[in-house]
Amino acid sequence: MITWLICYTVLTRAGFTVKSAGVNLENETYAVCSRNTRILPDIPSLNTSHADSDILILPGGGPGAKTFCNSKTVLQLIRKYRESGKWVAFICAGTTALVASVSDAKDGSVGEKVRVTSHPSVKEEIVDAGWEYGEEGERVVVDGKVVTSRGPGTAMLFALTIVEEMLGREKMEEVKGPMICAERL
Amino acid sequence: MITWLICYTVLTRAGFTVKSAGVNLENETYAVCSRNTRILPDIPSLNTSHADSDILILPGGGPGAKTFCNSKTVLQLIRKYRESGKWVAFICAGTTALVASVSDAKDGSVGEKVRVTSHPSVKEEIVDAGWEYGEEGERVVVDGKVVTSRGPGTAMLFALTIVEEMLGREKMEEVKGPMICAERL
Ligand SMILES: [Cu+]
Repeated sequence: MITWLICYTVLTRAGFTVKSAGVNLENETYAVCSRNTRILPDIPSLNTSHADSDILILPGGGPGAKTFCNSKTVLQLIRKYRESGKWVAFICAGTTALVASVSDAKDGSVGEKVRVTSHPSVKEEIVDAGWEYGEEGERVVVDGKVVTSRGPGTAMLFALTIVEEMLGREKMEEVKGPMICAERL
Repeated sequence: MITWLICYTVLTRAGFTVKSAGVNLENETYAVCSRNTRILPDIPSLNTSHADSDILILPGGGPGAKTFCNSKTVLQLIRKYRESGKWVAFICAGTTALVASVSDAKDGSVGEKVRVTSHPSVKEEIVDAGWEYGEEGERVVVDGKVVTSRGPGTAMLFALTIVEEMLGREKMEEVKGPMICAERL
């Protein structure tokens, strides 16, 4: 939820039109997130037609990440984005959805394994699935057009890295300034 | 909104029962926050009976802070909390509500001016109102039971400082660990 929100606001500040989308919401209008915070996504239900953005970002939260991993729509969208040479980004346990998108692919479009990071709690399953994993100190890993990161405390760096990779350093600095970030994120 | 959410989740992780409350919501059920994110507060409408928590935290967002400053309920609650020797905390433009709670007091209960910080964009009005203001590099200022901080990028330090002040360093470190924070927040 922190990771989602930081991405949402940082990318909006950078000039992106950001749309949040629900995945299998129990309630039709709002998502119940970690710590029982509740948000109303811009798109109530993600479907595979939502493939026209420049980047697909999956946050999460253990339970949220499980929902992603179990959603054929999410896994298919990840493959679609990667096939079209678009950016994909995962933070916290969200990286497990990227792994699942490759492991569970039955439609021929698999997607390459890349170098990633994630929340430490899911490192083992990612490494076991044969993915190259970043060093302890790497708070964000960029490999090709795949950006991954570790947890709520790395979300600001994650979001700013996405801005820098996609729009350049100058735009990133412009967005970072008014937020009064720590010197070393 | 980032500041709100980081406080909400960090304090919940620390074991607090956190309740978010709406202030003059245009819609009855949800708050439209910065960047058009929408959240459902736990308490739809704050009123002066909500004075039994251990701490009152006001985030904000320019428009949110203006709403706080114009709400007699908010200003009265700030005074109530301070009178009862409870904690109050303000981040970003939220500090202007603390200033207003003293400037606009007409009920005898004024509250002392303390040393504070805020988002740089509202520094001038705070200094003009006669409040002592923290140095540039002070990302969080604690004076008595008043905690203030600067912006989205200092929200994690702000929330963890509240945890440390109220529950001690050990609890703070316990909460901080799994979030993978930067070394120097
Ligand atoms: Cu702000």
